[in-house]
Amino acid sequence: QCRLKNLKTLLVLLTLKKSYKMTKMDKMESELRLLKMTHVLYGSLNVQMGHISDHDLKLRNLSPAAERLRHILGEDDSTPTPTIFTEMDTLQHEGGELEWKESARWVKFEEKVEEGGERWSKPHVSTLTLHSLFELRTCLQTGSILLDLEGYSLPQIVDEIVDRHIADGLLAPDLKEKISYVLLRKHRHQTKKPIHRSLADIGKSSNAASSLFTDQTQSRSMNDISDTPSTDQLKNKFMKKIPRDAEASNVLIGEVDFLEKPFVSFVRLSQATTLGGLTEVPVPTRFLFILLGPPGKTKSYNEIGRAIATLMVDDLFSDVAYKARDRDDLIAGVDEFLDEVIVLPPGEWDPKIRIEPPKKVPSAEMRKSVLNLNELGQMNGSAGGAAGGEDEDLPAQHELGEELKFTGRFCGGLWLDIKRKLPWYCSDIYDGFHIQSISAVLFIYLGCITNAITFGGLLGDATDNYQGVMESFLGTALAGTVFCLFGGQPLIILSSTGPILIFEKLLYEFSKNNSIDYMELRLWIGLHACFQCFVLVLSDASYIIKYMTRFTEEGFSSLISFIFISDAIKKMVALKYYPINRGFKPDYITSYKCECIAPDQGESVKSGSHQCFNQIFNLTDMDWTQLSKKECEKYGGALVGNACKYVPDLALMSFILFFGTYSMTVSLKKFKFSRYFPTKLRKLISDFSIFMSIMSFVGLDMLMGLDTPKLIVPTEFKPTRSDRGWLVMPFGKNPWWWYVASFIPALLVTILIFMDQQISAVIVNRKENKLKKGCGYHLDLFWVGILMAVCSFMGLPWYVAATVISIAHIDSLKMESETSAPGEQPQFLGVREQRLTGILVFVLTGLSVFLAPILQYIPMPVLYGVFLYMGVASLSGIQFWERIKLYLMPLKHQPDFSFLRHVPLRRVHLFTLVQIVCLAVLWILKSTFLAIIFPVMVSVLHCFTFYSSCTFKKNVLTITLALRNKNIPSVKTSCCKNHKGTERIFSNYN
Amino acid sequence: QCRLKNLKTLLVLLTLKKSYKMTKMDKMESELRLLKMTHVLYGSLNVQMGHISDHDLKLRNLSPAAERLRHILGEDDSTPTPTIFTEMDTLQHEGGELEWKESARWVKFEEKVEEGGERWSKPHVSTLTLHSLFELRTCLQTGSILLDLEGYSLPQIVDEIVDRHIADGLLAPDLKEKISYVLLRKHRHQTKKPIHRSLADIGKSSNAASSLFTDQTQSRSMNDISDTPSTDQLKNKFMKKIPRDAEASNVLIGEVDFLEKPFVSFVRLSQATTLGGLTEVPVPTRFLFILLGPPGKTKSYNEIGRAIATLMVDDLFSDVAYKARDRDDLIAGVDEFLDEVIVLPPGEWDPKIRIEPPKKVPSAEMRKSVLNLNELGQMNGSAGGAAGGEDEDLPAQHELGEELKFTGRFCGGLWLDIKRKLPWYCSDIYDGFHIQSISAVLFIYLGCITNAITFGGLLGDATDNYQGVMESFLGTALAGTVFCLFGGQPLIILSSTGPILIFEKLLYEFSKNNSIDYMELRLWIGLHACFQCFVLVLSDASYIIKYMTRFTEEGFSSLISFIFISDAIKKMVALKYYPINRGFKPDYITSYKCECIAPDQGESVKSGSHQCFNQIFNLTDMDWTQLSKKECEKYGGALVGNACKYVPDLALMSFILFFGTYSMTVSLKKFKFSRYFPTKLRKLISDFSIFMSIMSFVGLDMLMGLDTPKLIVPTEFKPTRSDRGWLVMPFGKNPWWWYVASFIPALLVTILIFMDQQISAVIVNRKENKLKKGCGYHLDLFWVGILMAVCSFMGLPWYVAATVISIAHIDSLKMESETSAPGEQPQFLGVREQRLTGILVFVLTGLSVFLAPILQYIPMPVLYGVFLYMGVASLSGIQFWERIKLYLMPLKHQPDFSFLRHVPLRRVHLFTLVQIVCLAVLWILKSTFLAIIFPVMVSVLHCFTFYSSCTFKKNVLTITLALRNKNIPSVKTSCCKNHKGTERIFSNYN
Repeated sequence: QCRLKNLKTLLVLLTLKKSYKMTKMDKMESELRLLKMTHVLYGSLNVQMGHISDHDLKLRNLSPAAERLRHILGEDDSTPTPTIFTEMDTLQHEGGELEWKESARWVKFEEKVEEGGERWSKPHVSTLTLHSLFELRTCLQTGSILLDLEGYSLPQIVDEIVDRHIADGLLAPDLKEKISYVLLRKHRHQTKKPIHRSLADIGKSSNAASSLFTDQTQSRSMNDISDTPSTDQLKNKFMKKIPRDAEASNVLIGEVDFLEKPFVSFVRLSQATTLGGLTEVPVPTRFLFILLGPPGKTKSYNEIGRAIATLMVDDLFSDVAYKARDRDDLIAGVDEFLDEVIVLPPGEWDPKIRIEPPKKVPSAEMRKSVLNLNELGQMNGSAGGAAGGEDEDLPAQHELGEELKFTGRFCGGLWLDIKRKLPWYCSDIYDGFHIQSISAVLFIYLGCITNAITFGGLLGDATDNYQGVMESFLGTALAGTVFCLFGGQPLIILSSTGPILIFEKLLYEFSKNNSIDYMELRLWIGLHACFQCFVLVLSDASYIIKYMTRFTEEGFSSLISFIFISDAIKKMVALKYYPINRGFKPDYITSYKCECIAPDQGESVKSGSHQCFNQIFNLTDMDWTQLSKKECEKYGGALVGNACKYVPDLALMSFILFFGTYSMTVSLKKFKFSRYFPTKLRKLISDFSIFMSIMSFVGLDMLMGLDTPKLIVPTEFKPTRSDRGWLVMPFGKNPWWWYVASFIPALLVTILIFMDQQISAVIVNRKENKLKKGCGYHLDLFWVGILMAVCSFMGLPWYVAATVISIAHIDSLKMESETSAPGEQPQFLGVREQRLTGILVFVLTGLSVFLAPILQYIPMPVLYGVFLYMGVASLSGIQFWERIKLYLMPLKHQPDFSFLRHVPLRRVHLFTLVQIVCLAVLWILKSTFLAIIFPVMVSVLHCFTFYSSCTFKKNVLTITLALRNKNIPSVKTSCCKNHKGTERIFSNYN
Repeated sequence: QCRLKNLKTLLVLLTLKKSYKMTKMDKMESELRLLKMTHVLYGSLNVQMGHISDHDLKLRNLSPAAERLRHILGEDDSTPTPTIFTEMDTLQHEGGELEWKESARWVKFEEKVEEGGERWSKPHVSTLTLHSLFELRTCLQTGSILLDLEGYSLPQIVDEIVDRHIADGLLAPDLKEKISYVLLRKHRHQTKKPIHRSLADIGKSSNAASSLFTDQTQSRSMNDISDTPSTDQLKNKFMKKIPRDAEASNVLIGEVDFLEKPFVSFVRLSQATTLGGLTEVPVPTRFLFILLGPPGKTKSYNEIGRAIATLMVDDLFSDVAYKARDRDDLIAGVDEFLDEVIVLPPGEWDPKIRIEPPKKVPSAEMRKSVLNLNELGQMNGSAGGAAGGEDEDLPAQHELGEELKFTGRFCGGLWLDIKRKLPWYCSDIYDGFHIQSISAVLFIYLGCITNAITFGGLLGDATDNYQGVMESFLGTALAGTVFCLFGGQPLIILSSTGPILIFEKLLYEFSKNNSIDYMELRLWIGLHACFQCFVLVLSDASYIIKYMTRFTEEGFSSLISFIFISDAIKKMVALKYYPINRGFKPDYITSYKCECIAPDQGESVKSGSHQCFNQIFNLTDMDWTQLSKKECEKYGGALVGNACKYVPDLALMSFILFFGTYSMTVSLKKFKFSRYFPTKLRKLISDFSIFMSIMSFVGLDMLMGLDTPKLIVPTEFKPTRSDRGWLVMPFGKNPWWWYVASFIPALLVTILIFMDQQISAVIVNRKENKLKKGCGYHLDLFWVGILMAVCSFMGLPWYVAATVISIAHIDSLKMESETSAPGEQPQFLGVREQRLTGILVFVLTGLSVFLAPILQYIPMPVLYGVFLYMGVASLSGIQFWERIKLYLMPLKHQPDFSFLRHVPLRRVHLFTLVQIVCLAVLWILKSTFLAIIFPVMVSVLHCFTFYSSCTFKKNVLTITLALRNKNIPSVKTSCCKNHKGTERIFSNYN
């Protein structure tokens, strides 16, 4: 049908032709139109034929320009062409002297020499005028094109060019001398930083400029045009911005008074050659574009120069330039470029605005594939267009497909994990040698010991010191080191977690009430859990994690972040040991006191515990007022006075330390994006932000000398409780059937560990993190199981992946590309995946017992500030959080998220709302005794959301598919509408 | 010479033509090239002729397209064409039904309906493809163009269009019915906010969509196409974004299966008519563009639709569309547009990125003036291009030229000031009625009373309470009210200033040492100063202020800001009455006490002042420990104990209040630029940020109940010192020659007042503030003089313009444009110039005596926080500050200031350095006793910098001029190179 319609269109167009003939126009114009119209029809005919036949004929669908390009680019696609660095020099008349002055350069984007500012502009997108592009096209048509010229020095090349011009009759022979003279003038590059000049020579700049000239004969003698790169060139730091394989293209633009028509030359050397001081950097020149013209059109020449320079750094055109066989190939390249340009309307954009380079540009491959016109290329092209920013919306399981496949074999998953991770083992060590690792280690170390101390303290309370701070330190160090050494995902940080704490608490209470030996029971539960973990590992059970959806994953990590934040704040509020005396009046300072009053003698005797003291000291003889608070309490004295319950300044100081550490960390992290100081310094400050804020506020605390609560690390290596040893015996204290029955609570622990561990692993392995070394879910679980058993034997707490600290670990190890073209945005390359930081963190944790003298200066509020920062930072990476913020934004201010382009806002809001409700329910449950079945709930949530999100996803996918479907016709019809070859577009014109 | 060269070029081109003929090409192509070449030559010839003759012939310089445009646009430039709102509807096939669905709209920028998101995209610059523009051009060439069609309803218009098509042979008559049917389908607009739909109908959207359709016959019966606007249209809030005079242009794009070739129609109605539900808003339609085509090219059709829509909102093309006489005029318009477009290279930009609207777009006038090609237009065009962002760099005196002219007549300046200000007097009152005024009044009021209290306190100390807080309040209220009522620049806020305080201090010491009556001496100095001010006013002396440079102006305002900031911090540090007990250990709380010990009896008797107490109380009998601190001191007791000198919590609390107020104000001010909440709410929050932060921290202070230092306002209306009355008598207490001799110190005061007052006025009248009601330097000085005399008679402090508070006043009254096209940046319109806020502030200050019960809750640290904010905020507007920041930025991160583009960085740095040194010297001098000659120094600085900056300016101007000069050749040569008419560009293309 399509073909028939096109045929009819053809007929109608033929009729049209007639009608055009009849309109009144001067003869020439009508002739032009007629010819163009014929051309249109010719193209149209091509389309028809292309459609009737198949692949072989399809080539004819291409416009002549595209067909040419397809031909030359298709020849040897295997050898990649070098990157091109373009430098544009313009001819300057200064004080009667001529010189070439660098005026702009391109690596990927344009940098211009600011005329007055004597400085490089920021890299920006080259905005051209259509005018200059068409003029350039004319230049290439009329000028001389020398392809694969054998050139070894600039004078020789210039000779060849001028000779060719004379031979072609484009230049009068008597001008040869003059042209060569001009082309061999010195080149002055914008390399010197004017700021380094002494301030004294301000005002002398014109003299300074002229002093740069050597006299005429000297310049003529080519000492500038030597073969070896000059020291200026070699010293140029800009070199590191240029890829190693780069070749230069030099654009020389100037006006001279002896020419009457433009002298245009496009030269490609057969071999890239370093032509002395032609280029500001020692990069060999491959292309030369020369445009000399009669005076009076500087601006226009400059624009043409910018146009060819922009073309030269265009990936597709530079390919064409390397492979062009003749003039027409080059012009086809320009046409192809013109066909792809983006046009901004003059009324909506000011050409003087410099456009910042975009974060991402479409790859040249896509444009090439369109040219090749094979089905695959077409599909890629359109799919790439439709997908682009969408991929992030697709649920997470796609990316996990490979590694979480259910093998069905015994130990299959574990075996694959080992096979996957083993080859990386060496690099896992040496990849860690980087300055960034130091900051990561410091950050995570502080997080870990804070965690160890707080959980240790809580566990000690919960278990009557069967597991205390000492056990917590030892366990963290042991479990963490082993896991980081042998685990599948060494970026995961093991730690005590809330649910386990609650389990231990309930278990201890249970065994105390039933007179069961806690440590032995716990050992058996640990052994059972270890066994169950092995069963899960051997049966590849972790594969169910791949059904994890964004819903669960986000919900879990948000919940953990919220818990972190609320814990940090709760702990701050818990510093109520230092209440503020709210009604304090400085005037009544005389009435504020706290005195130790001797106890009533009779009462003191009654309390047996004090009898011994009574025997040693004669209490009545003691000067009670000289006793400190503790001593007073110790000897049974009573503290009387309205100042007793208040501790001045400490509460506010703690608040300042807490809030100060948090805000300073946040500001220093953001400092990376400020304009001040060099990039490296800013990156350093940002990397070490936590360390620096901790140091600052520890310093402030020391300066104030207030007795803020400090980090207290055990200093002696022995169990917290003196009646237990480092090893728990499995038998003897409990009846035998407990060894079996402990299977039941172990099941709960296993679910808990499994969910905690694997969800954290999924979050760490998120596609956004661009991890390259693969994951090892089975291997991870295997080691967690083993550590369960070991810790149970040694009476240490159990450890499992800690989401927030693991995220912080990853965040502190993120890499960005460094040497990129000026203006190109640094790309997030991935995470420094290695085992070294983790190992160091846990070794340090183990050694903390010896670091106690240093660590004791760190106030707890500072560490709580770090906690708060960790929680907030881990929230900020979650899409859920972005979607919550959408509630507060009016429609028009919402950021341009791709999911908002494709999913109606009310659905986004509904999705978020359901997530919020689920989280709220979980939060409430977590706060009650039900916390023990928290893991079970998470798995229920998992199942629930798997089904519910299926329906959601269906909606989203429906929409996405619908969008894709809409694209499919346009892909198909692109055959009908023919390839958008330039010839045809322009022949449609007029 | 130019002409001759061009002639030679012509000859060369003719030779070229020959060479082209010889190259091997297929016949048709060579013919085409030949013809095009001829066309080039033809254009070239035009150029030649244009150059030889003058104005009359110059018109021929234009390309045919530009000539056409010049002709039609030049006809009646007086009547401005209405703004155009464009709506693009596309034909949708939903469930077998056809309907027109709005897919994009343009007021100035493009807004697109997100396909899946069912929402409007953000306004963005329309990025078009060159392809679509050329296709559009072809459409306009081949389609039917109906200009000035008499249309009253859509059906009638559609009939006319279809009939014309049939008459032109473009459409088979049997298709008339079908085309009309399609064109009269219902229009569905993207007006409903999907968010308001109930959440229940998620998933039913396809049903919902189809339920919107009425059945076929109903739609056919045109109930949608009524003449009166529907309620949906009227309720559309988008209407307020469209200018009142706007007319609509409707673009209808669709594919239908019965057509075999495109049906294209461009219609201009003779009168703009509301065509029922065609447009989403009740705006009358003037233009219609219809493109129906055979199926399979949706994307291409859409792009053509976007191209015409973008053209329609282009200022120049819409003019052309209104005035076009025929098809060729329209095409000439497209060509002119094409000639001006900005091209982005495909490899450097991703067309999918939506470009945010720029802050400023070039005006259409400039483009038109280029077309008109008269010398003026050219000059404006290029000057505008060169100047653009530079104007801000030009020194300040240009803008003051008119108002500070030296009249040479007696009282000339004063008379002109009165003449200038009087007509505004009424508007000065009623312009003040705005919600913004409330926040401004609150802000400035708090600033004023804080100032009044601190200066009052300092003056009281300096003059033994001859002038205390009460006098300060009364004087501020009196002087401020009078000045705001009658002054020339009512935005200036009068206040006590530092130099005057120092003068009073020295004067009081002098008179005390020499036994002269201070008040009488001061009165005579005041009278002399008043008289001297009158002399300055009458002799137009203020005109010298117009020689003020950026150097002095910036230096002065920076200095004042620094003083403000340092004062705020100093005052906070001065809260050392509440030291922190640094070594405090909670354990030893029992040892911290402060007891009142009875004085040694003998000692007490010795000190006579306590004898009376001895008689009343029996000191030995008293319970000294029950006494408060004050009582203890009163009765001569000694405070003993290590807690006496410490006051817990107050220092830290003060710090928290101070810093909290400052940071909260800064964050709330910034909140205006966040994405959350509707714009109006954000603006309100930003406007009331200071009030809100003060309230919050007053609340926090009350909650804590600590005895922080509070604002203490006198509650009784009487002089601070009981031995003085409200009136100072001029004679009697000092020898007569003092009345004459006081002329000398008065001179100092006059210089001080003159400089302070007029520099502040210059800063307030800065061009950046866009004040419209003119300034009144002479009038201001006149009133300041009168107030000097009045205040001297009443023994009140002297008042002069306070720079920082005046800047804060202006900042809080800034206006921005509200109803602008979507995506257009709000423009700073100016300042709400009126007298009301000032008057209210000072009346409130006067009434503060009665507000004392409320004001006493405000802690001083909160007010110091406000002070700090004022200082920092007034710094941020100063270029000097921006330049200081440049020192810390590496070259490549520096913002794109226009002065950096044009002045070498080292000069900028040197200029800044000199400013810093000058300021540092001033600062050091200010801190010594030399502060008294501060005004003299400022005037010396003024003179010094006038000369030094002349040289600097010369440099800057040299550079600027150099830049301009470089532009001049290009202006001149633009005649040579001819107007860049599209015809010629494209004909250059082969």
